[in-house]
Amino acid sequence: MSADPSFGACDVPDMPVDLVIHLGHAPMPHLRYDRVFFYDMRVPLPASLEFVDAAGSLLPKRVGLLTTTQFREWLPIIKEHLERKGHEVHIGEPDRRVAYAGQLLGCDYQTATAVERDVDGYLYIGTGDFHPLGVAILAKKPVIIADPERGTARDLGSVKDRLLRQRHAAITRARDAKAFGVIVSKKIGQIRTDLARDLKALAEEHGREAHIFLMDLVSPDLLEGYRVDAWVNTACPRIAIEDALMYSKPILTPPEFEIVLGVREWSDYVLDEIRVA
Amino acid sequence: MSADPSFGACDVPDMPVDLVIHLGHAPMPHLRYDRVFFYDMRVPLPASLEFVDAAGSLLPKRVGLLTTTQFREWLPIIKEHLERKGHEVHIGEPDRRVAYAGQLLGCDYQTATAVERDVDGYLYIGTGDFHPLGVAILAKKPVIIADPERGTARDLGSVKDRLLRQRHAAITRARDAKAFGVIVSKKIGQIRTDLARDLKALAEEHGREAHIFLMDLVSPDLLEGYRVDAWVNTACPRIAIEDALMYSKPILTPPEFEIVLGVREWSDYVLDEIRVA
Repeated sequence: MSADPSFGACDVPDMPVDLVIHLGHAPMPHLRYDRVFFYDMRVPLPASLEFVDAAGSLLPKRVGLLTTTQFREWLPIIKEHLERKGHEVHIGEPDRRVAYAGQLLGCDYQTATAVERDVDGYLYIGTGDFHPLGVAILAKKPVIIADPERGTARDLGSVKDRLLRQRHAAITRARDAKAFGVIVSKKIGQIRTDLARDLKALAEEHGREAHIFLMDLVSPDLLEGYRVDAWVNTACPRIAIEDALMYSKPILTPPEFEIVLGVREWSDYVLDEIRVA
Repeated sequence: MSADPSFGACDVPDMPVDLVIHLGHAPMPHLRYDRVFFYDMRVPLPASLEFVDAAGSLLPKRVGLLTTTQFREWLPIIKEHLERKGHEVHIGEPDRRVAYAGQLLGCDYQTATAVERDVDGYLYIGTGDFHPLGVAILAKKPVIIADPERGTARDLGSVKDRLLRQRHAAITRARDAKAFGVIVSKKIGQIRTDLARDLKALAEEHGREAHIFLMDLVSPDLLEGYRVDAWVNTACPRIAIEDALMYSKPILTPPEFEIVLGVREWSDYVLDEIRVA
C-alpha cells in the first residue's frame, strides 16, 4: 500500500512494483504514466433524482452540467431529466488534462468554459464545494450544487464571496514582500518549472527577490524557517486557496502574484489552472 | 533549492537537475548516488580543549572516541590530548555505511562496537544526544558527551534510562495488537523491503495480521486513519525512538516487534540499526 498522500491523477507515487493500481481518479490523458492502472470508481445512480429537482428553482433556463469522475455516467440521464423540465442543457468537451465530458478538476475548468457562451449558469453534481468553486469564480455565473449524498441543492455564491475576500487579504498582505519563495512540485501532473522561472524573472524585473523551492509534498511545516516574506505556489493550484490559513506567511497563486507585482488588475482575478490544450 | 526534508546521506532528493549539491552529511560508501556532490562541512577546532577536559573525571582509562562528520578531523588531536593525560584511546574503523573512522550515524554504531572489547567507555565529541544514545544502549558502557558548543561534558546514563522505560511502555502497549502496519521507506538509504517482508511473515506465523505501507516521508499525520493497531517501522531506525510521542498508536522498531511476538527477550533489547558489512 502506498501511504504517501495522493491528491489526484496528477500525483501517482513512484513505487518499486510492477504495477501501481490507482483508485478513484480518472487518468489525465496528457500524462505518460509508467505502469499505472486506474481502477475506475463509479457510484450507482440513486433511485430518485430528488436532489436534482431540489436545484430546480435555483437554475436558469440554459444550464451547463458538471461533475467529477465517479458520477460521470449520471450526466446523460440528468440532462434528459432537466430537458424534460424545459431546460436547455450543455455538457462541455474536455481538454487533454481531463478524461470525460462534463468532468471538473480542481485545476482545470475547461468543461465549464467550453459551454460558457451557451449557458446562464451551471449545475454541479457532487458533494463538495472544491471542484465547482473555481467555475463560480471563473465564469461569473451562478453555480448550483445538487448534492446526491445530502439530497439537497445549494448556491455557491456566498462561498465564492468569502473566498474572494480571503484572497484579496492575502494579496494585500504580500504587497510589501521583498523576497518570494516560488514553490515547484515534483509530482508528475503538477510540475511547472517553466512557469516558476518566468515568475522569478518577473519578480526580478519588478525589483523583488525570488527563489525557487522544489518539493514533493507541499506542507506548511516543511516551509517554516526559510527567509522569504511570501510564497508563490506553482504546484497544485488549490493549495493557496484551500490551505492558505495553515501557512504563517501569505501564499499566492501565480495570477495573484501578478496582481501583487502590478501586472494584473484585481478586476481580472482568476483562479490558477493547469490546462493542457 | 530542495524544500523536501533531508534526514541524512540516506535521504537525497531526486531532482530534475544536472547535479545535486548535498550540504553537511558525509556520503554513505555503500550507496550509489546519481549525480550528487557531498559538500563537506568541517568545523574548525576550538582554541581550547576545555570541553574535552570537562569530561576528564567522567572518563575511564580506556576510551573509545566517537563523533559526527563535521568534527572528524578533531579526533587525532583529541586522541593525543587524552593520551598525554594517561588514557588509552581507540578510534573504530567504519563499515561500508559510514565514511570515516570514529564517525557515528543515528543508525550505525559500527565504529563504537569495533573497539568495544578494548575500551571501558566512550567519549563522544558533539552537541546532541541523538548519535551517542544508540551506543549507550548497545554497548552497555558509559558514554560521555564532550560538547564543544556549551564547553561542558555530560553522562548519557539518565537519558538512556528514560528512553528504555519509554520503549518498554511502547512494547507493552503493542502486546495485544492484532493488526500491524509495517512501514517501508522509499529513501535510497532507508529502504528495507526484505526486512519488511520477513517481519510480515513472522507476524503471520505468530497469529498476527501485518500490512506493508510504502512511503517517502514517514510522518504521524500521514499515518492517521489506517485500521492497524500498531506500527513497525523499517525506515529510519530513529523514528520510533525520537518521534514516538507524536504518533497516536505504538510505533516499534523491528527488534522491539520481535519482543512483542515473543521471539526476543527484553534483556536482549537493542536499538535498530542499518549496518552494511
